[in-house]
Amino acid sequence: METSAIFHRPESEYAYLYTKDEMHIRIRTKKGDVSNVMLISGDPYLHEQKKWYLDNTPMDLILTTDVHDYWFIKISAEFKRLSYGFHVIGNDGTEVLYGDRGVFPYEEKYLAFANSFFRMPYFQEIDRFKAPDWVKKTVWYQIFPERFANGDTSNDPAGTLPWGSKKHPTRDDFYGGDLQGIIDHLDYLVDLGINGIYFCPIFKATSNHKYDTTDYFEIDPDFGDKETFKKLVDEAHKRGIRIMLDAVFNHLGMLSYQWADVVENEEKSKYADWFHIHQFPVKLDENLSTEELENVGQVPYDTFAFTGHMPKLNTANPAVQDYLLEVAAYWIREFDIDAWRLDVANEVDHHFWKRFYQVTTDLKEDFYILGEIWHSSQNWLQGDEFHAVMNYAFTGTIEDYFMNKRISANKMVSGLNEQLMLYRQQTNEVMFNSLDSHDTARILSISAGNKDVVKSSLAFTFMQYGSPCIYYGTEIGMDGFDDPDCRKCMVWDEEKQDLAMLTFTKELIAFRKNYQAILSFGKLEWFDVRDEEDVIGFKRSFGKETLVAYFNQGEEELVLPTVPQMERLLNHLTTEKGERLIVEKNGFVVYKETSLS
Amino acid sequence: METSAIFHRPESEYAYLYTKDEMHIRIRTKKGDVSNVMLISGDPYLHEQKKWYLDNTPMDLILTTDVHDYWFIKISAEFKRLSYGFHVIGNDGTEVLYGDRGVFPYEEKYLAFANSFFRMPYFQEIDRFKAPDWVKKTVWYQIFPERFANGDTSNDPAGTLPWGSKKHPTRDDFYGGDLQGIIDHLDYLVDLGINGIYFCPIFKATSNHKYDTTDYFEIDPDFGDKETFKKLVDEAHKRGIRIMLDAVFNHLGMLSYQWADVVENEEKSKYADWFHIHQFPVKLDENLSTEELENVGQVPYDTFAFTGHMPKLNTANPAVQDYLLEVAAYWIREFDIDAWRLDVANEVDHHFWKRFYQVTTDLKEDFYILGEIWHSSQNWLQGDEFHAVMNYAFTGTIEDYFMNKRISANKMVSGLNEQLMLYRQQTNEVMFNSLDSHDTARILSISAGNKDVVKSSLAFTFMQYGSPCIYYGTEIGMDGFDDPDCRKCMVWDEEKQDLAMLTFTKELIAFRKNYQAILSFGKLEWFDVRDEEDVIGFKRSFGKETLVAYFNQGEEELVLPTVPQMERLLNHLTTEKGERLIVEKNGFVVYKETSLS
Repeated sequence: METSAIFHRPESEYAYLYTKDEMHIRIRTKKGDVSNVMLISGDPYLHEQKKWYLDNTPMDLILTTDVHDYWFIKISAEFKRLSYGFHVIGNDGTEVLYGDRGVFPYEEKYLAFANSFFRMPYFQEIDRFKAPDWVKKTVWYQIFPERFANGDTSNDPAGTLPWGSKKHPTRDDFYGGDLQGIIDHLDYLVDLGINGIYFCPIFKATSNHKYDTTDYFEIDPDFGDKETFKKLVDEAHKRGIRIMLDAVFNHLGMLSYQWADVVENEEKSKYADWFHIHQFPVKLDENLSTEELENVGQVPYDTFAFTGHMPKLNTANPAVQDYLLEVAAYWIREFDIDAWRLDVANEVDHHFWKRFYQVTTDLKEDFYILGEIWHSSQNWLQGDEFHAVMNYAFTGTIEDYFMNKRISANKMVSGLNEQLMLYRQQTNEVMFNSLDSHDTARILSISAGNKDVVKSSLAFTFMQYGSPCIYYGTEIGMDGFDDPDCRKCMVWDEEKQDLAMLTFTKELIAFRKNYQAILSFGKLEWFDVRDEEDVIGFKRSFGKETLVAYFNQGEEELVLPTVPQMERLLNHLTTEKGERLIVEKNGFVVYKETSLS
Repeated sequence: METSAIFHRPESEYAYLYTKDEMHIRIRTKKGDVSNVMLISGDPYLHEQKKWYLDNTPMDLILTTDVHDYWFIKISAEFKRLSYGFHVIGNDGTEVLYGDRGVFPYEEKYLAFANSFFRMPYFQEIDRFKAPDWVKKTVWYQIFPERFANGDTSNDPAGTLPWGSKKHPTRDDFYGGDLQGIIDHLDYLVDLGINGIYFCPIFKATSNHKYDTTDYFEIDPDFGDKETFKKLVDEAHKRGIRIMLDAVFNHLGMLSYQWADVVENEEKSKYADWFHIHQFPVKLDENLSTEELENVGQVPYDTFAFTGHMPKLNTANPAVQDYLLEVAAYWIREFDIDAWRLDVANEVDHHFWKRFYQVTTDLKEDFYILGEIWHSSQNWLQGDEFHAVMNYAFTGTIEDYFMNKRISANKMVSGLNEQLMLYRQQTNEVMFNSLDSHDTARILSISAGNKDVVKSSLAFTFMQYGSPCIYYGTEIGMDGFDDPDCRKCMVWDEEKQDLAMLTFTKELIAFRKNYQAILSFGKLEWFDVRDEEDVIGFKRSFGKETLVAYFNQGEEELVLPTVPQMERLLNHLTTEKGERLIVEKNGFVVYKETSLS
């Protein structure tokens, strides 16, 4: 047995409270190396008296990656505390005790040693990772405000271009999109079926994307005013739609009053310690173009990436913390927003995010906090910072298979499973799964215009753990390469919309909402993954209900036996041939498996 | 190559800031499986532009366990942020890229993918684990106040027994030890050489051990009063001795006014939510003996272990938090204590400890927080809860080899290395290494009376990372089995003291203080570990200085070539024979290796 591959970490995604009284325990072994893993557990103070270490409870093999098997068990504890270890049996017959002091032979003398065991010292409800339930029921829609709809031409900035007038917008274009435009289309969104909107920044800023904030307490005048925003939130809430705003707390815009004060007063500015300044003066050449500003290289202060106009905030400074936390509170308290999406969240310190969690969830118990992090994010997802991250590492793996054809079916499944095992189950349930955004190319362009692939990817993503998001315009077939091309004006002319895609998207959203419990909480089983045929079959099951899905990305037709009780829920590129169901290339089918019991 | 054994975790003990600008990175591979590991790293925003992923920096193999090799590198980053991955070369010639998305072939197409890499998003000084420097220079002395010295007979409790009158004290005995007794012997401690005292609880409580607190704001009247305690702290500080008190925040004593109020007023008590009560009434039978109280089984409230007289505090209740934090602050603010040792620290929630860290370190920047945790403690040692834990898992491994003869020399080294790799280097530097305490048998008894083994174990422990502690009386050869036997009265009669042990202890403490920098910061190298002969040779080196140590636990003599430049610093059971140095059974030698350069 390969003992060097065995891994467990106490008080982490490998051992955590799922509910108040139920603990989840995972362990990792080398793939295909181990025949059984059994949990050995009991009260730490009854180790000697009860000799519970002589008992075993079998664990389930739940997911497999290309190198590891993951085993799982749910357990509770009479006195809310647990000592536990693992009895691992290799395919070669080796039996070991794996615990807090490493690997030992599975023998009573090691089992009888209390310190051999890992500990869950006490079931602390206050430390448990909790996430708002509504997020699990949410299908999100992301809006880039400058490009969704122009509902009020009176607030158009100077030089506003006619809506959609350029095939490929540039970084400096303005088209007049605003909050009133969004209000005007709320019923369109209700009809689409979504029930959460994620807005890119709407606060006062210079650029069209508004990530260079100049005032967090003001709505950008190009977008409207506070009254309009209040109306937007209220109208959305009336329709059962939650509102998530974008908090850009890593950096400020160079035209903010704080940075302007530093430029003017240098060391003497009361904001000098709001930033990470290496030396003075800090003023940049005024004649730099947007592109030069965005690739400024080394400047006398820390910036977001190398963008000279976005000086990084010093969030270790209590004054900065208090200021940003008041921003965070203000929009919840005064406008009743439901969630914050946190820009460049990984580059802001953990101390600050812990305070942020406290302030926001104290104001609104079921508030949702979503961090923008593209890499593995365990440290932000321990229950006291974020509820979820933008799950690019997960959805990127889906894209690498369906769209980029960079990895095989099995490699994708391996990657998805690995991502799932990085986080607690309750975290996976509220992850934010978007296939594209204002920061990526649009999925239709990544798929080289193949709408069948787009539909397959969307359906596949909607069937995973986490709450899915549609980037505005995807539902009517918009395309676009990397920023700024992915930020085209929304197409409202029905003649230019892909109405088949719209119908498909509505059906998909309705399906997600109908089967939300299975998709949020149900077991995931990859029962048929074939690299050669490029076919993936998986099941989601919860209670007595099971959904079965087949995705065919291969060149050949996939032939399934049609059974009378097969209730088809989603279909794409399928045909019935007598007793059989044919799934064509880039097609898929999802059906309900009726329990035989 | 065994890729299933490769492990790294970003933002953990595997990747952390050691100083403001220097990051430490570790990775684990299967023992003996890999010939080289190289770091691939650069700025996340320059991945494409600089193509830094084509460069490699070799890592060092620093420590090995029985199953794993650990590789290490120090690195800084121009813009305080880092993307990094590993180029791992197996002994079989396989080369892989290991990063944030798992293991891939070491090929440019994977290297060129920015998301292949782990991230240290920004060097956040505020999140860095920091520990007080003085702890590294401290040799601790633990005092169980009821048994160290009786300096004031006027405060003896009723029924006080004559000092040392029982060979084996029982759980209910009182001998009159007090604070004045400690003051009277401060010069003894100065002479011994220690410079930190850890006191078991001194607050008002019922038992002789005082772990059943009735009032955290009062000195127990059996021990003295606040004036005496203030004098003790001042006199200790004058002598360069730091003071650590014991905070019992997991539970209260049943005679505290809070619990008494609950017993009296039940649901209506304003303290009802201070505890974890399942149902009322909570009052226990008044006639229970101490032993019955300590093994009470299931009662209508949560307790420490099954001790009915120690109801567990609900530290999730803000009123309880505020109360305990005021206790924590009071003794720092009013009496200038230097450290808190936290009893049953693992069973109190992390939220509370984070507030505790903030309150105590805000009051005194170099305050030291030590948790009582017997198992692996990563989650408490992230930089915002504790600085260290009572390192039983580490010292227990030393005992299992030297005293219990339960494990081989190599297994001990493996266990110690595994413990070291659980924590950041700066954490290891301040770990609290005691071989025994009020909660364990005394080392002389564990060693079955073999004082050579005791001396070897002490010397070995004093040469490791961490700050060592002597349990009162060890220096004069006291013995004792498990509690209450390990809590005998200190022997002050010189005729009954082991003066040779006293001399040895003084020399050892002086050695530790003289070579503190090497022992705190120096590299550790196990260059000669032989199971059959039962011999351990290791080096500690820092800058140009190297200490070499040999410990002989075998039956045979260990013969070392004496070289002229060998400067012997510690010796036990050694003799010179011509050109050679003989280390007898249970002996050891430590000498300074003069650099040849």
